[in-house]
Amino acid sequence: MVAPESETLTKLSMKALFIGFGNVGRKVAEILFEEWEKFENLKDLGLSVIGIVTKSHGALVNQSGVDVVKALQDFRDIGRFSTLSPEFATISGVNAARRLEYDVLVELSTLSIQQRGEPALSHVREALGRGKHVVTANKAPAAFAYHELRELARKNGARFLHESTVMDGTPVFSLARSGLKGCRVTGLSGILNSTTNFVLSRMEQGESLEDAVKTAQKEGFAEADPRHDLEGWDAAAKITVLANALMGASLTPFDVERQGITRVSIQDAQRAVQAGKHLKLICKAWREGSNVRAKVALEEVEHGHPLAPIHESGSILMIETDLLAPFIITETDPTLYDTAYGVINDLLSLTPA
Amino acid sequence: MVAPESETLTKLSMKALFIGFGNVGRKVAEILFEEWEKFENLKDLGLSVIGIVTKSHGALVNQSGVDVVKALQDFRDIGRFSTLSPEFATISGVNAARRLEYDVLVELSTLSIQQRGEPALSHVREALGRGKHVVTANKAPAAFAYHELRELARKNGARFLHESTVMDGTPVFSLARSGLKGCRVTGLSGILNSTTNFVLSRMEQGESLEDAVKTAQKEGFAEADPRHDLEGWDAAAKITVLANALMGASLTPFDVERQGITRVSIQDAQRAVQAGKHLKLICKAWREGSNVRAKVALEEVEHGHPLAPIHESGSILMIETDLLAPFIITETDPTLYDTAYGVINDLLSLTPA
Repeated sequence: MVAPESETLTKLSMKALFIGFGNVGRKVAEILFEEWEKFENLKDLGLSVIGIVTKSHGALVNQSGVDVVKALQDFRDIGRFSTLSPEFATISGVNAARRLEYDVLVELSTLSIQQRGEPALSHVREALGRGKHVVTANKAPAAFAYHELRELARKNGARFLHESTVMDGTPVFSLARSGLKGCRVTGLSGILNSTTNFVLSRMEQGESLEDAVKTAQKEGFAEADPRHDLEGWDAAAKITVLANALMGASLTPFDVERQGITRVSIQDAQRAVQAGKHLKLICKAWREGSNVRAKVALEEVEHGHPLAPIHESGSILMIETDLLAPFIITETDPTLYDTAYGVINDLLSLTPA
Repeated sequence: MVAPESETLTKLSMKALFIGFGNVGRKVAEILFEEWEKFENLKDLGLSVIGIVTKSHGALVNQSGVDVVKALQDFRDIGRFSTLSPEFATISGVNAARRLEYDVLVELSTLSIQQRGEPALSHVREALGRGKHVVTANKAPAAFAYHELRELARKNGARFLHESTVMDGTPVFSLARSGLKGCRVTGLSGILNSTTNFVLSRMEQGESLEDAVKTAQKEGFAEADPRHDLEGWDAAAKITVLANALMGASLTPFDVERQGITRVSIQDAQRAVQAGKHLKLICKAWREGSNVRAKVALEEVEHGHPLAPIHESGSILMIETDLLAPFIITETDPTLYDTAYGVINDLLSLTPA
């Protein structure tokens, strides 16, 4: 049996610096260093991690390769890196990005809208400025400085990849790079925030917003502080990244007309259902002359609407272009593996095809 | 505004040989040589066509570039190339592929299941054997000799691309190449033949198979001889190409368990609807031990089924992998532009990124 088109058997042979080691970072590490034998095409990747830097759980640095399995075990045992580890270090993300020797920065810290993407933005600037590749699941860099960073990457012969910023690891940006050559994207629409979609689905069935949020938190896809989702900021950041990357826009999340779901009542949700519709938080980007505009707004969509089939925690994106008829990508039931996989696909995209 | 990720502004600077100049071939030529000004990212591609060879409408050869606009006009005026043209030639597809000087063969002849993919297969072998790239919308090469041709391409430093063989130009193979690195595809399921899907949708509404086929022919997506579609051969060829390219299978359409829709009655279709379901011709590929199996079969799918939303002429494909949760690609309302676009995306994929 010959290797199918999707399989990359090249070795990475790269040194990575991780900044951020939360759920996504640890899952990437678990897949690549603990679970790799379960995944036939991930054997022998040849990735070594020379540093893992967190904001408040310590840092590990070892130019010959951090003991990632031990690091994961420490997190499980004591919720942080052990200060007793010979690899333990005291270093900030910015300093690590600026001073350590690595080939790719894996930036997995948390998006801060209020701080306009910092400190992630600085980490990425340091790396790209030194000609190091960047792979990130953090929406900050592409939502606040997309074109500056792409240009910085180009100038320094590095790549800036961010597949997991939208729809987890479901191919969106890699698809656009390879499958839409020569097309001009004219419009985007989708349901991109799973917490609000889950909550709206539950409210249709008579559950209150508060109870639905609690269920989403219990099932693990709503944050402890759900306001970032409920107020539409996560959705706004995602449509910003999409508009910047696929439509050449220069937006930030602050440029997106934004509506959340905090004022939706059970009655609103049920009224929509009685009218044969669903209340959805829809993200849109479109062209107006030479500008690109974007918004996040509550809409009642009919049963037959292309975006209607998405319930609970899935996501969906419709892409319109000048040449190809509108097409739709749907993500079903994502777990943490999906977000982690987006990072892994980006890492594998750094090797020549 | 900076060029978005999807845009390729590189020049192709390539010489192409076209074999086949039917609806798809002429639409590719129209887009690239007559309509290009309408498509912002197709300007200045630098593609020259050094030959166009058809089975029964003549051939044109000109090493400095065939006058494609004139050729299209002749087809519109007299339904074939003019024997009076100074570029008119008498040459077979195989001889053209073997003897002319070109960089890429654009193989757009018609699939013949009965002849096991010939003569397309020979055209592609000639080209790849000489180290020339191949771009094809014909399912024959990938359905009958996928791995032989990939290996031939690899050995000779050429590429073998076939985006338009399944779901027209909607990114499927380019997506798998760039967006599923390190994943192992474990299963595929989809509705891939638009004629049968259209006919089944119409039969739900009480139209007879014969009338529905006539409507599909009138709307331009059923062939004059619809048996290739109705008997499930087109669907079988498509799931074969997908299984070969995405799952490493070595199938031909003759290895696919195949069911068509010729025996479906209006009553069957309406009984499904009354039971809250839809009768669909579903393509599937799955792994059994180290083998890959595939089938095309009628199934009653529930309203909520991931493949149910596809009505009339759309297509849909669900991809399951070992790492990434199942995801779905949906093509809405394709026209000839979509098939032609898949060929153009393949052509643009031949330039370094």
